[in-house]
Amino acid sequence: MRLSRYYIPTLKEDPADADVVSHKLLMRAGMIRKLTSGIYNYLPLGLRSINKVAAIVREEMDRAGAMEVLLPMVQPADLWVETGRWDYYGKELLRVKDRHGRDYCLGPTHEEVITDLVRGEIKSYKQLPVNLYQIQTKFRDEIRPRFGLMRGREFIMKDAYSFDKDEDGAEKSYWEMFEAYRAAFSRIGLRFKPVQADSGAIGGDFSHEFMVLADTGEDTIASCLSCEFGANLEKARVKLPEAKPEVDESAVPAMEEVATPGVHTVEEVCSFLDITADKLVKTLLLVVDGEPVAALVRGDRELNDIKLRNIVGGNEIEMADEALVRELTNAPVGFAGPAGLDTNVPIYADRELTMSTDWVAGANKSDTHVLHLALERDCTIERYADLRVIEETDPCPECGGKIEFTRGIEVGHVFKLGLKYSEKMEATFLDENGKSKPMVMGCYGIGVSRIVASAIEQNNDENGCCFPPSIAPFEVCLISLGGKDQDVADKAEELYGEIMKLGVDAAYDDRKERPGVKFAEADLIGYPMQLVLGGKGLKNGIIEAKDRKTGEKIELPLDGFAEAFTAWRKEIWNNWGLEIA
Amino acid sequence: MRLSRYYIPTLKEDPADADVVSHKLLMRAGMIRKLTSGIYNYLPLGLRSINKVAAIVREEMDRAGAMEVLLPMVQPADLWVETGRWDYYGKELLRVKDRHGRDYCLGPTHEEVITDLVRGEIKSYKQLPVNLYQIQTKFRDEIRPRFGLMRGREFIMKDAYSFDKDEDGAEKSYWEMFEAYRAAFSRIGLRFKPVQADSGAIGGDFSHEFMVLADTGEDTIASCLSCEFGANLEKARVKLPEAKPEVDESAVPAMEEVATPGVHTVEEVCSFLDITADKLVKTLLLVVDGEPVAALVRGDRELNDIKLRNIVGGNEIEMADEALVRELTNAPVGFAGPAGLDTNVPIYADRELTMSTDWVAGANKSDTHVLHLALERDCTIERYADLRVIEETDPCPECGGKIEFTRGIEVGHVFKLGLKYSEKMEATFLDENGKSKPMVMGCYGIGVSRIVASAIEQNNDENGCCFPPSIAPFEVCLISLGGKDQDVADKAEELYGEIMKLGVDAAYDDRKERPGVKFAEADLIGYPMQLVLGGKGLKNGIIEAKDRKTGEKIELPLDGFAEAFTAWRKEIWNNWGLEIA
Repeated sequence: MRLSRYYIPTLKEDPADADVVSHKLLMRAGMIRKLTSGIYNYLPLGLRSINKVAAIVREEMDRAGAMEVLLPMVQPADLWVETGRWDYYGKELLRVKDRHGRDYCLGPTHEEVITDLVRGEIKSYKQLPVNLYQIQTKFRDEIRPRFGLMRGREFIMKDAYSFDKDEDGAEKSYWEMFEAYRAAFSRIGLRFKPVQADSGAIGGDFSHEFMVLADTGEDTIASCLSCEFGANLEKARVKLPEAKPEVDESAVPAMEEVATPGVHTVEEVCSFLDITADKLVKTLLLVVDGEPVAALVRGDRELNDIKLRNIVGGNEIEMADEALVRELTNAPVGFAGPAGLDTNVPIYADRELTMSTDWVAGANKSDTHVLHLALERDCTIERYADLRVIEETDPCPECGGKIEFTRGIEVGHVFKLGLKYSEKMEATFLDENGKSKPMVMGCYGIGVSRIVASAIEQNNDENGCCFPPSIAPFEVCLISLGGKDQDVADKAEELYGEIMKLGVDAAYDDRKERPGVKFAEADLIGYPMQLVLGGKGLKNGIIEAKDRKTGEKIELPLDGFAEAFTAWRKEIWNNWGLEIA
Repeated sequence: MRLSRYYIPTLKEDPADADVVSHKLLMRAGMIRKLTSGIYNYLPLGLRSINKVAAIVREEMDRAGAMEVLLPMVQPADLWVETGRWDYYGKELLRVKDRHGRDYCLGPTHEEVITDLVRGEIKSYKQLPVNLYQIQTKFRDEIRPRFGLMRGREFIMKDAYSFDKDEDGAEKSYWEMFEAYRAAFSRIGLRFKPVQADSGAIGGDFSHEFMVLADTGEDTIASCLSCEFGANLEKARVKLPEAKPEVDESAVPAMEEVATPGVHTVEEVCSFLDITADKLVKTLLLVVDGEPVAALVRGDRELNDIKLRNIVGGNEIEMADEALVRELTNAPVGFAGPAGLDTNVPIYADRELTMSTDWVAGANKSDTHVLHLALERDCTIERYADLRVIEETDPCPECGGKIEFTRGIEVGHVFKLGLKYSEKMEATFLDENGKSKPMVMGCYGIGVSRIVASAIEQNNDENGCCFPPSIAPFEVCLISLGGKDQDVADKAEELYGEIMKLGVDAAYDDRKERPGVKFAEADLIGYPMQLVLGGKGLKNGIIEAKDRKTGEKIELPLDGFAEAFTAWRKEIWNNWGLEIA
């Protein structure tokens, strides 16, 4: 592509509303433009990268036997009513009425539509398994769209849906997709890790997220240094020590109130009573789908509200407001405790609290705590469960090894849905014995536009993007520095032709711009390979070649260019851990 | 693709709600499924055809120097308010409020978004011209979606937008797109004709439609048998005879009322008064943007309401209802006339009415007409203009030659927009003299999904679709008839491999189905080439090859198959007027 005829509106300055590096660089490199909050125009360069990601994903889906379809963006409400998600999905589901007053939504995901499609068509086990996917624009009305393409409202997603006749088939489909994802992300050249994840609003039996590792990621991942274990923090189980200490509540002195005037926080209580936080039971009051619940964790731990929500079996979870706290505890915030709490509030306790006793806790009374609390003796616990956030000092929940925390960006998510949708929507088939059964489903998403952003988050420097060659808008940029020198222009044209003939995706900077401008823009956009042709090099029969990622420069001979270039190109790809497609 | 692993849910019966052949066949061939009124799922086969159309269109757009972008589906209302189309566009514009109560619409077209995009970026004449296009899903909330993919609500469109510094540049861009469209439709293999068209809600200076010729088309085209002229009926000018007869109104007797009890229609009046319809002035009362107007055409002619709307300069046009007719004429429907009509109603008269005088017309009085009406003498005509629908007996408006009417399906539309959007949205640039000017725009649409349907409308028979090889879901279908014969299965596998190696898009029917089922489905889906391998053929070293379009069968040798197949394939493409890409 001749850049003199191409539309790349670069910016000199970071846009004011861009917080993360990928957002800044995508804007500055002329790849995207904001239309309105969370909604972006993809400009020619940006679309090229997106299309390259899509092509790799498509190939890996096809290879895995999935078939491409295209489902509508506008979906009728009645399907969402069937699954209950018309109410459940909340405000992220953008709802719209057509001219006849009928209800629709813009698809944030397509479980309902795809299940409706197959339930009319697939009648026999002989037609299963089927795996259908699409690459399509989704809309989720995020309350706070942010970070450019990282968390937009309108975005491009690959979503696939598998239908199987039984659990075994569904697991097979799940792991086939898992492997297809691994292959796709590897081919894109991202450093990533699949981790155990919560199923959220999609629901289902279990799921994994594919995380691109980047310090700027919104998610925290717990990974084991000894085994393969990895999990999103919101999902990671906590392992209790194997040897449970003997806990004898009968030895605990009777519960006793102590005045703690103006002492609210864990730190304040510990300091006031001169105890360590692990002697304290922290009591949190929350509301799950409108009903209050209490959660207990040790004073030095953090409640994992996703775990709590899943155990309670609800949808929306939020902290109780001050008024409710006052109503349930007869005290201001800071004095809640499990003993003497409103008896209508079920109490969920973290399992770790079974490892000790003789606790300090709030007294449900202003400016008062209790000493010598014994949980079983003094309160009614609804259930003990794994409720807290894992910490970096915890052992690996699978092998007991050491874990570490890293940051990640979710770019893929695979779900084993099971019967959640097929039962509600009556997507059934006749099995080998003529018996009607619901299909066992899985669903599988990849954030296509988000991948481009996450590739930049992972690969950038002070001068701009450093794209992997697999998804760079152009693999190579040929920079002609001849100015008005016709010899240079002619040679550059010739080289451009040669590169094109090799089937390599090249941008040819034939613009009448100063060398400094051309260099800076090539670095900003982040073409993996730069070729610089100037008068002096031309006289000496060489062209300067720069690896954008490492900054390493070498000289390629003009005589025998094709061969030397091809070898260098192979090296660049290999340095990225990639093979030329 | 092995059909044993492919998802093609064919139907034996025509679906009840399908009126046109493309809708029936797209459903029956398992290419699409209806989600809800005017909204379709594209199944694997259907999507393949759509993608082939898109690829050809993309290539021709790129060749013409246009650059691909992708603009959002959800657009903020404020841009539409700027151009006035938030009010003007009517109910086809699907409006939606987000969670914060802000107004948006689903894009039925993207003039506002693209103009907003470039006005922030293009500042100098040096950056012009620019032509940006996208292939994207559009939504238009049609009042009566129908005919499957022909007039859906959600559909796939290629839309391009050009920006030039002056009129000459804009015309050049227009004709470059015109030629790119001609090239694309030719490569798709459609019989089509570009015709002059009305600009409708998009507006602008002038436009052409590209019509696929098919008896089932919704549009009528007037074409000249002598010259290149072609026009949509709603646009086609009417040529007046060159020699204007002398019309002397002073010789017309005074206007005189005549009782015509219960005589309403043109036919009834003519029969009652024993005159021919060309002696009558037909007076039609309409409402343009809420204001009543009257239109006069000769009794034997038909009013073209698009022409009237354009001359009045309005947006929505509809017939006056009975109450309004009664109010304006003091009579029931059937007795309106230009003389004595409510004086607030402007009267527009077809130019043909200047060619004669001494008319019969309604008297604006129940059961009464007038004789000896002289238009200039007896009424106040706001304006004479070309107001009627062209007839097949009219001469060609350009060369005077003979015209004929054919039916067509609009698959492309090019518009010279001029300054309509750039002035309203202040999309300006600095010209060579540093003067700020609005950009001169054009816009260009292709109905990508509609093309697949129109290809079927043009090419089908009682057994199914006859796809052109350029956009068939698969170019060739290899039908293996071996049953349990391992020799046939092995040879079929080998042939399938050979065809794939030739880079030809093949469906391989390896299913355990009866030969009749396989033949019928291959015909239904309309693969252009069928190869049938059976036990007997195999024994004789031949494979049967069928041209789906002509039904012609030949035998290809298994020995030297690649060469014979390649030659036959070339012939098939050539018979379609196509060259292999």
